[in-house]
Amino acid sequence: MDSSHPPKEVNDNRHVDYVIRYSFEDTDAEKATQQLELLLRRLSEVGLQTEVREGDESSLLIFVRASRKKSLKRAVYQSRIRDWLHGVRNTEPEPESSAEPQSESERLRVVHHMITVPREAGGAGITMKHGEWKNVVAIFPLHDEGMNKQCMRDWSRKTFLSNEDLDQIRNTFGESVGFYFAFLQSYFRFLLFPAVFGFSCWLLFGSFSIIYTVGNALWCVIFIEYWKRQEEDLSCRWQSKGVSAVREKRREFIPEREVHDEHTGEIRGVFPATQRLQRQLLQVPFALLVTVALGVIFATCFAIEIFIAEIYNGPLKTYLVFIPTILLSALIPTMSGVLVSVATKLNDYENYETQMAYEVALTQKIFVVNFITSYLPLFMTAFIYVPFASRIAPYLDVFHFTVRPFVSKKDATTTREHFSIDPDRLRKQVIYFTVTAQAVNFAQENIVPIAKQRLLQKYKEYKKRQGKAEPENNDSEEKKPATIPFEDAPDEAQFLKRVRNEAEMEDYDVTDDLREMCIQFGYLALFSPVWPLVPVSFVINNWVELRSDFFKICMECKRPSPQRADTIGPWLESLGFLSWVGSITSAALVYMFSNGHEGPNGEPTSIKGWALLLTISFCEHIYLAVRYAVRATIAKMEPPNVRNERAERYLLRKRFLESTLQSRSSDDEDEANVPYVDESQEVPEITRASLEEDARAWSKHGTDTSERFWMRQKGWRESAHVASSIVRALAGPESKKQQ
Amino acid sequence: MDSSHPPKEVNDNRHVDYVIRYSFEDTDAEKATQQLELLLRRLSEVGLQTEVREGDESSLLIFVRASRKKSLKRAVYQSRIRDWLHGVRNTEPEPESSAEPQSESERLRVVHHMITVPREAGGAGITMKHGEWKNVVAIFPLHDEGMNKQCMRDWSRKTFLSNEDLDQIRNTFGESVGFYFAFLQSYFRFLLFPAVFGFSCWLLFGSFSIIYTVGNALWCVIFIEYWKRQEEDLSCRWQSKGVSAVREKRREFIPEREVHDEHTGEIRGVFPATQRLQRQLLQVPFALLVTVALGVIFATCFAIEIFIAEIYNGPLKTYLVFIPTILLSALIPTMSGVLVSVATKLNDYENYETQMAYEVALTQKIFVVNFITSYLPLFMTAFIYVPFASRIAPYLDVFHFTVRPFVSKKDATTTREHFSIDPDRLRKQVIYFTVTAQAVNFAQENIVPIAKQRLLQKYKEYKKRQGKAEPENNDSEEKKPATIPFEDAPDEAQFLKRVRNEAEMEDYDVTDDLREMCIQFGYLALFSPVWPLVPVSFVINNWVELRSDFFKICMECKRPSPQRADTIGPWLESLGFLSWVGSITSAALVYMFSNGHEGPNGEPTSIKGWALLLTISFCEHIYLAVRYAVRATIAKMEPPNVRNERAERYLLRKRFLESTLQSRSSDDEDEANVPYVDESQEVPEITRASLEEDARAWSKHGTDTSERFWMRQKGWRESAHVASSIVRALAGPESKKQQ
Repeated sequence: MDSSHPPKEVNDNRHVDYVIRYSFEDTDAEKATQQLELLLRRLSEVGLQTEVREGDESSLLIFVRASRKKSLKRAVYQSRIRDWLHGVRNTEPEPESSAEPQSESERLRVVHHMITVPREAGGAGITMKHGEWKNVVAIFPLHDEGMNKQCMRDWSRKTFLSNEDLDQIRNTFGESVGFYFAFLQSYFRFLLFPAVFGFSCWLLFGSFSIIYTVGNALWCVIFIEYWKRQEEDLSCRWQSKGVSAVREKRREFIPEREVHDEHTGEIRGVFPATQRLQRQLLQVPFALLVTVALGVIFATCFAIEIFIAEIYNGPLKTYLVFIPTILLSALIPTMSGVLVSVATKLNDYENYETQMAYEVALTQKIFVVNFITSYLPLFMTAFIYVPFASRIAPYLDVFHFTVRPFVSKKDATTTREHFSIDPDRLRKQVIYFTVTAQAVNFAQENIVPIAKQRLLQKYKEYKKRQGKAEPENNDSEEKKPATIPFEDAPDEAQFLKRVRNEAEMEDYDVTDDLREMCIQFGYLALFSPVWPLVPVSFVINNWVELRSDFFKICMECKRPSPQRADTIGPWLESLGFLSWVGSITSAALVYMFSNGHEGPNGEPTSIKGWALLLTISFCEHIYLAVRYAVRATIAKMEPPNVRNERAERYLLRKRFLESTLQSRSSDDEDEANVPYVDESQEVPEITRASLEEDARAWSKHGTDTSERFWMRQKGWRESAHVASSIVRALAGPESKKQQ
Repeated sequence: MDSSHPPKEVNDNRHVDYVIRYSFEDTDAEKATQQLELLLRRLSEVGLQTEVREGDESSLLIFVRASRKKSLKRAVYQSRIRDWLHGVRNTEPEPESSAEPQSESERLRVVHHMITVPREAGGAGITMKHGEWKNVVAIFPLHDEGMNKQCMRDWSRKTFLSNEDLDQIRNTFGESVGFYFAFLQSYFRFLLFPAVFGFSCWLLFGSFSIIYTVGNALWCVIFIEYWKRQEEDLSCRWQSKGVSAVREKRREFIPEREVHDEHTGEIRGVFPATQRLQRQLLQVPFALLVTVALGVIFATCFAIEIFIAEIYNGPLKTYLVFIPTILLSALIPTMSGVLVSVATKLNDYENYETQMAYEVALTQKIFVVNFITSYLPLFMTAFIYVPFASRIAPYLDVFHFTVRPFVSKKDATTTREHFSIDPDRLRKQVIYFTVTAQAVNFAQENIVPIAKQRLLQKYKEYKKRQGKAEPENNDSEEKKPATIPFEDAPDEAQFLKRVRNEAEMEDYDVTDDLREMCIQFGYLALFSPVWPLVPVSFVINNWVELRSDFFKICMECKRPSPQRADTIGPWLESLGFLSWVGSITSAALVYMFSNGHEGPNGEPTSIKGWALLLTISFCEHIYLAVRYAVRATIAKMEPPNVRNERAERYLLRKRFLESTLQSRSSDDEDEANVPYVDESQEVPEITRASLEEDARAWSKHGTDTSERFWMRQKGWRESAHVASSIVRALAGPESKKQQ
């Protein structure tokens, strides 16, 4: 595989490990200079080499590399010791002198650690956008352009990524991004089955087929459990198993009080769990708020839409039908933006102690918001509009009053009797969400940011040109000595241009991409029986998605600083939840729509409450039982890398134990054999004389009956002799009788 | 606390660690003698001292103790090394020379390990009742009578056991038994709430109160989650966290083929998981078989009972009503005995590789059998008899034909119209299962075995007396020399009598007691709304149970060989399952019976299918949501011992990291300060000359642009200088403007 061995000799990045962007827009020059000096000294103190270049008109770029081999080695060694103590590594790390980062991502991670970790823990303590270092607006590594281009070229020609490709991503961007791509890849590969199966079912049975629904639910269960194993396997392969145990403190954590820890002897900030719990209870009104707020918006747009499309008959109908779509398109992103920011505030308020806990809690909140924005419209169509529309429609006369001034009653609305449900509405909506919306999303994600970036760049260039034209007249003398660093050295110009460009890029956040996939999975689990071609659309989408996401990381975002992970995190739980809810909605959908007998108004006839509930309840429990069985089954199959790791551990144990055993057998030769030699003499006949002698020996030992008990038989041979005499005495006669 | 410090100086057990009972009943004397010799030699080789005494007429008792301090120390050290490698211990064990067992249970466990572990792993390889050592019928430690008596005395005077009492149990009988008592104690303590609450509800609202049901379900959830935390806490306190990782191979495991493991380089028996899975699928027909078999028995007895009690009116009615009870009492224990033995066979066939996997699988099967025998009768009454009896009753005419020959039709049966349901039947049954059956069970468990033991002893003594009377005439000469060991030394006689008595006792199996508690919990979770006094009965029962179980271990069973555990194992899962099912049955029971409006035949009126299902489904999901919330909440509260352990780990990490940090700062002084001194000079003005000089220096270095990039600024001070000039140039004019 070419892609896995990028040409190492050509290093376009000039051995730069990290670039720190320092903005002095809001600071006066004196203070900035002082702070920069401090920054550079700090970096130098931990053993990092620095070079300073101009950024844009209000920022500096500080290039950082771990020059002194020794300090890097020490940092790598420390990081490995930490891993080992947390149980991430099995084996004690090799000594410091031979500690070399094994991959680019490890090197970058360690350097990042050196830059950011507090001084008392041995780092430079540079915290981005926080406290003292508010002006440090970015700390990022540089893209490896050669590798990126080659990957993109390679991948466009193949269907599946190989394990080596994933390793390559992990080596470049770290485990966290690696896990996302591995997930996407597994998901894509697994989607092929429902795509083929769904297509066949669509041809043979059409929508709402029971066979497809069962197959799909089973697929969801198997996929999730398979992915859990896969995760474990990858975390062994990438040696990141258990990294979540290495908990990073959150800088923003505000302790309620300081406590002297009697165990560690340290003063430690504490925030009581009960108080946090109280704050977390705010989530309940928040979730209600989200549901109600979004529910009202959806319901209103929905009602307007139904009214216009199916009741209203007045003028401008062709234009008015777009009102709800426009409303939704405008309101939903705004609302979910607001809600996500509220969720973030709520999460900040909950004051988590570790970065991980914070992220997990935030992810859960964002999932709730996304769940509602993504699936509520479909829920409303499936479970409110279709069964109850004929009862709700009359109330839509409310709108009628609004339009009355403009039109006469007779023309404006169809009479109630003629109102009919659009039975295809649900399918149309599902198709919209699973095809159109995915494409729109793709465009938003990939094309819009590039355009934005280009425009911004143009604007900056324009502004710079304008800016330059003006001040040069005033301060020409004063600036003379300083102009030297302004002009880039000709051999650096292109490189610096690229770096400045990268510095302008967005930060990449892997959770956004994971969220997108998770929501996509939800459509499949919850609503795909409506239109079994859903997985086909997703297969195509995800082939593109994988490549475009990679393109996005490489071309539209700063290279993310490698982060370790051993899982895709709380999204896994969300997937499980979606698949569970899917078992309920699928059962309900199939029961409600599969008979195909539609009433006169297009509504499904003969929905019986108890039968619907029985179906749902039955399917849900079958689902849970199957999940239990699948989980137990898959848990028994050990993934290859886990097995390797186990074998490694086993060998380690064996070597240790063998060494202690050996020391024992050599001890035995020295010491234990002496009594053996004594014992190997013929056991003396037990006589009255010998017994008396023994009795005398005991009396010397005093009255300790316990010791006397143990002195009756000296050595095992004497015991054996006594044993044999007892056996002969007792079993002898019987065995003789038997013969 | 007196009980926690038993008088150590009085050792009734004469320092005996283990007693091995060797039976030569079915072996001829020659072979037995040889084997005994081998046995004694093996024990001696691993450093154990032995004494042989007569057992009963066909067995020997071999007393074993770890005499040579060094070999015990080595075994303790090895066991700790093993723990450490498996992650059970955090800290590397102290050196071998200072390895002392910390408690009696550790000592016994280590000695047991020395006796039983295969020779290649450094033990004596004595496997009880297996292979070569088929004649070794028991390996057991001796009871510490003083301690036992003191505990029983102490506990009878107090309500709750203290943590020290639990530690005492753990030190004597090992963690596995310790966990059972800790569970029982927690359960008992937790039961006080539903007992008080249930009693109040019973007074205020009677049966089927919604308030009681909700409270009870919530209690179940909290109890289970609390116990999980408690388990974790105890496993930290007892230093057994993660012992399940130390997997013992099962001796009975039959590998399908030998495989050369490429990682460990060993030949290893393999049994493919897929094949085991196929075998496990047999569980499905087994579960069906159990359900059908027991269902048929119950249904028959039930039908007979209803027929006789409520339809039949013929002669002998007063006697005939006992038929079903007699049938049930005879059939159920037999059937469940058969089913459990089938389950065990099935489990053997599944061929598990480790002892733990085997036990977990067996426990699950036994749980299924017990679930059905315990709860099926109540399910049938609640969900078949009460709602459908009036429809089923007519079919009971089948029995009518049977009795027709004896009586005239008119007298024999009430007419159908007069048939009425006994509305109290369910309550009577619940009371029977939760009060009467518990008492019967108590008697079976504690009184019957003692009586049996006494009788057996009497019988043996009688037989011995008879046996002795006869052979003495024949072999008096030959036996003369052997008679010496027959007569116990006077100072040992009483001790040996006690040991022989203990050797006759049953083995103690902690899972039986756990199963019993688990089933009891099930009645509470599933059916207590029927009669809210259920927890009151259980509180009383469990106070006695705790003491009687301890009495049973001490007086009726061999002292169990200490086994480590960090959980009550699969029973925890069973408890969770029961509590889940409880949310369903409770909801159904309350819905069906709470309105109190009974129809003319005693059956509850107006049960609507959809409403019942909606209630159940709603309650179940509420239950699951609450469980999720409770779990998340409790997970956030760290139990004290877990915290201590975490603090310990933290200190360990800190010390390690500090030591590497220190070594660094000393390095820095040696080496890194040299360039600092150079750098602290005044930075030379950047002039054309200096630039040209730099350029010359670069050209010497050749064309490596990367290195040239890093050579522009020498040291951080030069970088700082450049930075300040850039800042001044760019920000300077602006800041001036602002002023």
